[in-house]
Amino acid sequence: MAQEIPEKALQMQSLIRKDGTVELSLVEVPVPAPADDEVLIRVEATPINPSDLGLMFGPADRNSVSVSGSPERPVATARIPEEMIPGVAARVDQPLPAGNEGAGVVVKAGSNDEARALVGKTVAVAGGAMYSQYRAVKARDCLVLHEGTTPAEGASCFVNPLTALGMVETMKMENHAGLVHTAAASNLGQMLVKICRDDGIPLVNIVRRQSHVELLKDIGATHVCNSTDDDFTDQLTGALAETGATLGFDAIGGGKTASQILTCMERAASRKAEGFSRYGSDVYKHVCIYGGLDRSPTILTRNYGMLWGLGGWLLTPFLQKIGRDKAEQLRRRVADEIKTTFASSYTREVSLPEALHSDSIAVYARQATGEKYLIDPHK
Amino acid sequence: MAQEIPEKALQMQSLIRKDGTVELSLVEVPVPAPADDEVLIRVEATPINPSDLGLMFGPADRNSVSVSGSPERPVATARIPEEMIPGVAARVDQPLPAGNEGAGVVVKAGSNDEARALVGKTVAVAGGAMYSQYRAVKARDCLVLHEGTTPAEGASCFVNPLTALGMVETMKMENHAGLVHTAAASNLGQMLVKICRDDGIPLVNIVRRQSHVELLKDIGATHVCNSTDDDFTDQLTGALAETGATLGFDAIGGGKTASQILTCMERAASRKAEGFSRYGSDVYKHVCIYGGLDRSPTILTRNYGMLWGLGGWLLTPFLQKIGRDKAEQLRRRVADEIKTTFASSYTREVSLPEALHSDSIAVYARQATGEKYLIDPHK
Repeated sequence: MAQEIPEKALQMQSLIRKDGTVELSLVEVPVPAPADDEVLIRVEATPINPSDLGLMFGPADRNSVSVSGSPERPVATARIPEEMIPGVAARVDQPLPAGNEGAGVVVKAGSNDEARALVGKTVAVAGGAMYSQYRAVKARDCLVLHEGTTPAEGASCFVNPLTALGMVETMKMENHAGLVHTAAASNLGQMLVKICRDDGIPLVNIVRRQSHVELLKDIGATHVCNSTDDDFTDQLTGALAETGATLGFDAIGGGKTASQILTCMERAASRKAEGFSRYGSDVYKHVCIYGGLDRSPTILTRNYGMLWGLGGWLLTPFLQKIGRDKAEQLRRRVADEIKTTFASSYTREVSLPEALHSDSIAVYARQATGEKYLIDPHK
Repeated sequence: MAQEIPEKALQMQSLIRKDGTVELSLVEVPVPAPADDEVLIRVEATPINPSDLGLMFGPADRNSVSVSGSPERPVATARIPEEMIPGVAARVDQPLPAGNEGAGVVVKAGSNDEARALVGKTVAVAGGAMYSQYRAVKARDCLVLHEGTTPAEGASCFVNPLTALGMVETMKMENHAGLVHTAAASNLGQMLVKICRDDGIPLVNIVRRQSHVELLKDIGATHVCNSTDDDFTDQLTGALAETGATLGFDAIGGGKTASQILTCMERAASRKAEGFSRYGSDVYKHVCIYGGLDRSPTILTRNYGMLWGLGGWLLTPFLQKIGRDKAEQLRRRVADEIKTTFASSYTREVSLPEALHSDSIAVYARQATGEKYLIDPHK
């Protein structure tokens, strides 16, 4: 277990300059000494999630990326559209380390018992700055993985698994009878299908390809609607009427998807209503936007009465809202089921420099369903 | 007090036909006999609110209105756009009586003491079907007006006053520090200015004309932003930063107004924030759409982080949520301040037939700020 710990190690940083360029590069930073209640993790696997791209590229046009530097120390540069520059004023000239989550082995600990107990353990953490070779974090923020779980298997313990579990918990807290989910063939979407299948929760999945319909049905999905089918809104209305689902989670954000879901929820509710109400049904319909695969404006037709809500949904405030005990319960479930319910698949495993090569960026920045990269910072 | 009560009386009804035409006409209906717990009101004043137009015209194009029939029995007809017809399927071939609220004198009562105590009193009621010469309602739904308040003065006791008070109560329930209001020079907006002035609640008003800025300042508004000014978003951001207002009420609905408010709220919050958060500020921002002056789609740019919400807001579910005691308290305040805080002004007083003349419809269907009609069904 005795590892050689270097004095300095690599970290991926994102820097926005005043002229509106964003620069991603690898920087040698001192390997931190853990404080009393901290551990030092040798990061061995860390995924590139859509939620990481926001910090990496800011609001830059991801088609404008160019890469300079050497293959070992590439520098990726992109341009932020003029009108978006004021929105990132607070970031200018501050290099920010990237990477929301990852897993690795604890190689050093502070003096506390809790910290020392973790030495040698494989742990997952959502500490930020995970695109680093070494990362010091609080011992109590570590999720200890079961014996036999590799860092690669545990790299995605937080963002997707807790978001999927958070959708189900939000549904229960707001007293909805079921869920609708867009971009449902994603890693996260597949987790949600398995949770809902195992927990008996009505779920309507929306996908964009026939092959994804089959993929989700194979893992136990009951309702899968293909948004490219001519009769999509009829399919969706039918599934919503059958499940009574009135809470949607939308990863797309832009365009008419959220509005379309609200419209079909209202139609489904009206089927059951008696008579006509001038303000629409008396069923409250809610869609949470938790991603921004489409960054264009959200278009709402508002043809669903007055009892509707739309809003942003973010994991961190959700976890704060449910409290530490409940959150810990969800985290334990993730560790217990990381090889089944919460298994992630990756299309490619890359080193830190490879993550900044233009061929890599071209793939993961597109955020296509099924394309997901894993970084091994020590590769 | 002994009034001659006829057997039949006029009522305005809206009928949607299968072919997508909506027809507004005056129908002779039997004057109802009040049940034990009911009173019969001789309706003497009833306003045409924007919220009435929804039932009157449905989703018809209000520029397509044509009027036939005689001056005493006009019939106004309008066409519903093809794509909107499925949304009103539940209304087809069912004549619906129009008119949300009004005031009049109780001319007859059921056998209950509560009902009998109201005979001869001037009362206001939000019973629906108020564009009628006579209307039977439950005694307990009547708001008894003070001696010296005329039906014309009390005609608008519910929709505008309770919505304005509901905005303030919603702000308190959701722990916001202040309010933003669009179309703020409306009758309702003026009420809100007076409530906030008297109760010490920070309020940011948004208007579309310089004359409206002065109108609101004259009645005690502190912050009034003119959306036609070049520096509107700077004005708004400044007022939001000063007041800390994070709850908006938008009467417009369509276009970018709601999104613009959220953007400026976020900018105001960022001014106070330390450092940069990749998901935006940690301030929750909420806009309630309570009207639809612009029926075009709502456009959301989503450049305000993830802590935001948008939704429909409707008076009736709000009153149900706060409970009967609290609602009664608000109603009493309206009766007490109907000649001051909650005074409405009308540009014209019309008879039931005149309300269906094309020159009238052309004015009130436009919903211009400051243009409001009052119907006297016995004129």
